[in-house]
Order: sequence, then C-alpha cells, then structure tokens
Amino acid sequence: MKKISRERTTDMFNQTAYGLGAAPNPIREVFEYGRRQAALVGPENVFDFSLGNPSIPAPEQLNQSIRQILDTQSSIRVHGYTSGAGGDLLRTAVAENLNRRFDRHAGPENVFITCGAAPALLAAITALTVPDSEIIAIAPYFMEYRPFTEGAGSRFVLVSADLPNFQINLDALDAAVNEHTQAVILNSPNNPSGVVLSEETLRRTAVLLTDKAAKYGHPIYILADEPYRELAYDGVKVPFIPNIYPNTIVCYSWSKSLSLPGERIGYVYVSEEAADAKEVFSAVAGASRAIGHICAPSLIQQAVAACIDCMPDLEAYDINRKLLWHTLTEYGYECVKPEGAFYLFVRTPGGNNSVFVEKAKKRNLLLVASEPFGVEGYLRLGYCVSKDMIERALLIFREIL
Amino acid sequence: MKKISRERTTDMFNQTAYGLGAAPNPIREVFEYGRRQAALVGPENVFDFSLGNPSIPAPEQLNQSIRQILDTQSSIRVHGYTSGAGGDLLRTAVAENLNRRFDRHAGPENVFITCGAAPALLAAITALTVPDSEIIAIAPYFMEYRPFTEGAGSRFVLVSADLPNFQINLDALDAAVNEHTQAVILNSPNNPSGVVLSEETLRRTAVLLTDKAAKYGHPIYILADEPYRELAYDGVKVPFIPNIYPNTIVCYSWSKSLSLPGERIGYVYVSEEAADAKEVFSAVAGASRAIGHICAPSLIQQAVAACIDCMPDLEAYDINRKLLWHTLTEYGYECVKPEGAFYLFVRTPGGNNSVFVEKAKKRNLLLVASEPFGVEGYLRLGYCVSKDMIERALLIFREIL
Repeated sequence: MKKISRERTTDMFNQTAYGLGAAPNPIREVFEYGRRQAALVGPENVFDFSLGNPSIPAPEQLNQSIRQILDTQSSIRVHGYTSGAGGDLLRTAVAENLNRRFDRHAGPENVFITCGAAPALLAAITALTVPDSEIIAIAPYFMEYRPFTEGAGSRFVLVSADLPNFQINLDALDAAVNEHTQAVILNSPNNPSGVVLSEETLRRTAVLLTDKAAKYGHPIYILADEPYRELAYDGVKVPFIPNIYPNTIVCYSWSKSLSLPGERIGYVYVSEEAADAKEVFSAVAGASRAIGHICAPSLIQQAVAACIDCMPDLEAYDINRKLLWHTLTEYGYECVKPEGAFYLFVRTPGGNNSVFVEKAKKRNLLLVASEPFGVEGYLRLGYCVSKDMIERALLIFREIL
Repeated sequence: MKKISRERTTDMFNQTAYGLGAAPNPIREVFEYGRRQAALVGPENVFDFSLGNPSIPAPEQLNQSIRQILDTQSSIRVHGYTSGAGGDLLRTAVAENLNRRFDRHAGPENVFITCGAAPALLAAITALTVPDSEIIAIAPYFMEYRPFTEGAGSRFVLVSADLPNFQINLDALDAAVNEHTQAVILNSPNNPSGVVLSEETLRRTAVLLTDKAAKYGHPIYILADEPYRELAYDGVKVPFIPNIYPNTIVCYSWSKSLSLPGERIGYVYVSEEAADAKEVFSAVAGASRAIGHICAPSLIQQAVAACIDCMPDLEAYDINRKLLWHTLTEYGYECVKPEGAFYLFVRTPGGNNSVFVEKAKKRNLLLVASEPFGVEGYLRLGYCVSKDMIERALLIFREIL
C-alpha cells in the first residue's frame, strides 16, 4: 500500500482525548514505582500507602450468591441484557434499602444502575448541564470531577474546604454560587481527607442553597458522591443528604462497601422529592446512553441485589486507622480526625510536599501528595493495607519527621 | 423549605440528554408491546421477532470458569480493579487469539478492554474526532452510530449500501469521502441485513480509502464494528479487515459470540500497523476515561480469558435461519441471503412498512420496520428465537402476504 503523507500531524487524532489518555496519573505512578522497587528490594521493604483499593475481601455471601445464580437460573436470564436503568430486581432492592434505612419513599423509578460511581457522576453532571452552567466542587476533591464537568460542558468551580476541619467553608460557597450554578458536588466520607460532613454543616449548606435557588429562580442540586457511605468509624453516622436537602442526587458505588471495585456497579438515585425528578432521571438515562451505557453487568446486578443489606466488616480498617492516627499524632504529625473512608490526611511536616515525599521515597515509604486533590501541603495515606506494613512503616515515619 | 420558583423551565436540565433518555426506542417499544400482549392472549400466541438477544446459552465452560475463579483466587484479585485498559491476562489472550486466527502481530498494548461494543465504538469515534471531522457510516446502520458521532463532535455522514445485495456502494462512498473524513464505520456481519461484506468489496474499499488518504494527506481509518464476527453460516469466512487495510480499528464484543450481552465486555483493537497506532490507542484510553470508564468488569474479564477460543454453537440459529429464509422465499417474500448475524432483512410486501407492520401486529406478529436503520421498505426479523415460534409464525406470514 502507498505510504500516507503526514501533513496534518497536529490534528490526526483527538488531542484532548490523547491528552487525557497519555497524561500521567500521579497516584498510579507512585504505585507503579512501588512495584518496581518491590522487585528490587523485596516487597516487605516497600511501604506503599498510595492506593485506595479495598483490602478486605468481598463478603462470602457475594460469591455464594454468584454460585447460586449460576446454579439455578438460565444462562439467558443470568447473562442477558437488563433494561438500561438496570434490572427491576436490583432497582427495587436499592429503593427498599433506602426506604428502610433512611425513611425514604423511593421506588425503582428513582434508581438508575450504573457501571460504578464514575459514570454515575458523569451522567448526573451531564444531566444538569445547561447553557452557561457551573458546577461547584469542594477542595480537596476527586480529580475526575474536573474532566467530567468540563467534558459535559459546564464550568468547573472550586471552593476550598474549611481548614483544618475540612467541613464546608460556607462563606466561600456563598461567594461562589451565582445564577449559573446548577449543582454542588459533596463527597462524604471524603476522599482524601477521611472527614464526614456533619449534620450541622449540611443543614447550613441546605439553607444557603435554598436561599440562592429562590433568588435565582431555579433549583440548585447537591450531587452527593457517596462511594464511602458505609465506611464510618467510632459510631459516627453519615447523614443522608436527601433527608436534609430535597434537590439531591446520590451517586453510589458498591466498590468499597462490598469490596468489588473491579466489578463496576453503582447507581444514581434521583431523590423522589427533587425538583423535576422525572425529567432529571430521563436526562441521566440519556446521558448514560450517550456514553455507550447499555446496562450494568447483569450477573453482578443480581449478586448485589442478594447482598443488598450486607454491611462491610470494618474492623481491619478501624484497627489500621487507630494505629496509624494515634501513633503519627504521638510522633508529632498533624492530622485531621479520620471518621470515614480509609484515608488519613496528614499535614506535611515542613510544609513542602515535594521535599518530604522525596525523603520518604528514599526510604521506600510511598505517599501521595495532596496537590492532585486541589490542596497543598498534605499527604494522603490509604490505610487499606496490612497492619504489619503499617507497623514497620511507622518506624520510618518517626525517623524522617 | 421554600418553594422554588420556576422561571427557567426550559433549561433546568440538559435538554439533549433528556431527549436521548426520553426518546422512544422503536425496537424496545415493539418488545414491550409484545410483553403486554403475551399477558393478554398468552405468550404462545405472540410472535415477537423484534429483539437481537442471543437465544443460545453461554458455553458451559464460561460458568465453570467463573466457579473456578471464585474457588481458587483471592477476592481482591477476582473483584479488584484491573488497569484501565484491562487486565494483562485478557489483553494478552485477545492478542494471541488474533495472532493465531488471523496471522497478526498484536500485543496486549494494542488491545483496550471495554464494557462492550458500544463504549468501544464511542471511544474509537471520539479518538478520531478532530476539528471539522466527518465519520461515514453505511446504511442500514446501527442507530447509536449517529448520537455517538455527533456527541463526539464529528459530522455523521450516511452512505447507502449497494441494494439489493447490501455490499458497499463504492461510487457513493467515493462521493462522500472528502478532506474532513476521518473514518468509515463498517459492520459485518451486518445488523440488520445479515450480510457479510465480501473480500472483494473490502479490497476495493481499501484501495479507495488509500487513494483518498494519499490525496488528502492524512490517514482515513476503518472502524470495524464486529459484534457478530463469529456468527457466519454456510462456511462463509468473515474477512479480517486489518489484514486488508492497515488503518483499521476493530470494535468487538463477546455479547453474541459467548451469549453474554448483559455482562458488558468487549474490546478495541488498534491494528499494530495503523498510522499513529500508539497515539490513537492513548486517545481511545483518554476517550474512555472521559466517559467514566475505570475498567471492564473484572470477574468476567478473567472468565472470558479462560474461554478465549470458545466458538458459539450456531446450530440452533442456523436451523432457524434456513427454515425462515426458505419458507418465506417460497411464499414469495424477497430477502437478501442472510450469511451472518441472526437477522433476516425482508423486503416489505407492498413496500409500505407502516401498513404491513400494523397488519402483522393485528395477528400478534411483531416485526421491526427498517426506518430506524436508515433504509425504507424492509423488515428486520431477529431469528434468535425458538424454532417452535417460527413454525407457528410462518402460517401468519403466509396469510398476511
């Protein structure tokens, strides 16, 4: 075949998509470095706190349910398409679970099953994007919020959390909301800070958004990004935001609560009390269709429905959390009290992330700097690791302080 | 809470997404009507040819593999994240399968595992979208091509197939390709026509596109949409397009070949010989990231890897195909010879689809009109149904002719 000339090299393929695909992922890079180091110095000498992968196994009931589904149902029913919004079985199970736990009046028509939290969020953000719209997130924030928002066509507006407690800075939020604001993304329990937004914070936020909505003559939604909902410690209750603010859309995932992040299963719950709930739900469905969503994986839909009331056994995380938090605090590290998720957010000693992260790296202690989350001078430690690794890593933490 | 005023009703939520989500799906509507009728008159009296759902079960080896994976591996490994492009296991299995079957030199770095063919196509279309770009499809075509293309930002250009044999109309294609053309989507075996594009058609198309690419100074890609690759009858060989045209990107799904459409698993294979193969692959990864793809479902990835060489047992489809085609032809229906997929594309007697479809519907014979596929005057019959239903339906076909 003839060789093709290459005059259009700058626009031969999608530069934005290429940029997203070729961009280094700062967290993944730390992890990959850890793997290479482990091969050199032995895995027992590498202390990798970079990832947010559940380290407790999925409940045995989940695998039992999968076996039972395979044993008792026809292949067509197990592996066949469900409707785009998900099978009735799981949608109904989710609605009933919300009704039982949070005194809601949800039906399957309010629940759209997705391939995990990421496409749930993207669909919700897209559903609320209108001409000139803006979507607000609170820093520190999950780094995909920005490309999802900008990709959908909304302006991404960042508001700092109230440091050092990482609740919402209401003055900053008040200043950021304007007539273009369509939604505020809240993530509680929070990645990376581990903080749970308090009932008081949420009530004050609800009053603020209600007043602003009245002023601007249109609803302003809360997008509640809740993959860590079930991961709270010390008896802390994570408030259910739809009970505080009607215009709430919940984006949920079973990745952490059932320890199956690879299986890609979650949901969007458009509160039955939200303004234009039916239309927003249809827009979530349309936004999902536009990104090639056909349905969430069918076998796992059924398996999750069978485990809908399973709660994670948090004991291993809790032991790690207490050990790491108490000991680091004792050594003199400053750290916000971690009430949820499985992260500790530690103030960087000396304040300079690149210096401290490098210093730790020389001892094979691998930490993630906070800059990708939109704040400076913190380190994220995922404690979804073995207790044994934490114990050995603490010696290094002490030495490098 | 204060009641929210509603002055912005026209742009309270995303109108495009709402339109996509609320739009009636003509095929799904026929199916839903069939379900309602079945409840009224009994399922044995409804003859529904509307859907394209596999009716043969997944190979038993697949379910066995799932059981074995659950029995022998840790939960973290089974249900944990894989890398965004998929686990090495399945990517390598796909590459080796292509190398064995089609004499390729693919490696895992050429294979991106997706949640089925739809997001694979969307990612490939997005990856090739540049300013002012156009993407060509051949009618009849799968109806999501248009929203995927327009959503990505390319112009969607439709070229008619060469009727009545449904190969490619090369004169029409020649006229449609211009300096903005980035790709031509080919779907063989074809939904809805059941036609397999011949080696000769593909060779002539390759020559045409190679000449055009030289003329315009940039590559023009073929996007080979191949969910029906393994479904061919009468010993017909489906040519592997990357062996005919180097600038090919294959979008594949195991939905039909392993009868697991609900499990959402497929891949993009960027030919190792394609222009800018690495960059296009990164753009596919970035386009996937932008739509909230984290990874394809992890358990099913492993199960499919274990079944990589399984071919579907087509006997049931083939019996249906022959029965339906021979008998309808005998009755006087005109129909293109169905060599692949599981559809028969029948010329509408009298030429008026709405009249004939209504007439059939009164007898509870449910057919899909061809208009949503971009051609007029045909009916699509999915023969992935029971032989018994076909036998009884044939009496009605005879009566209403």
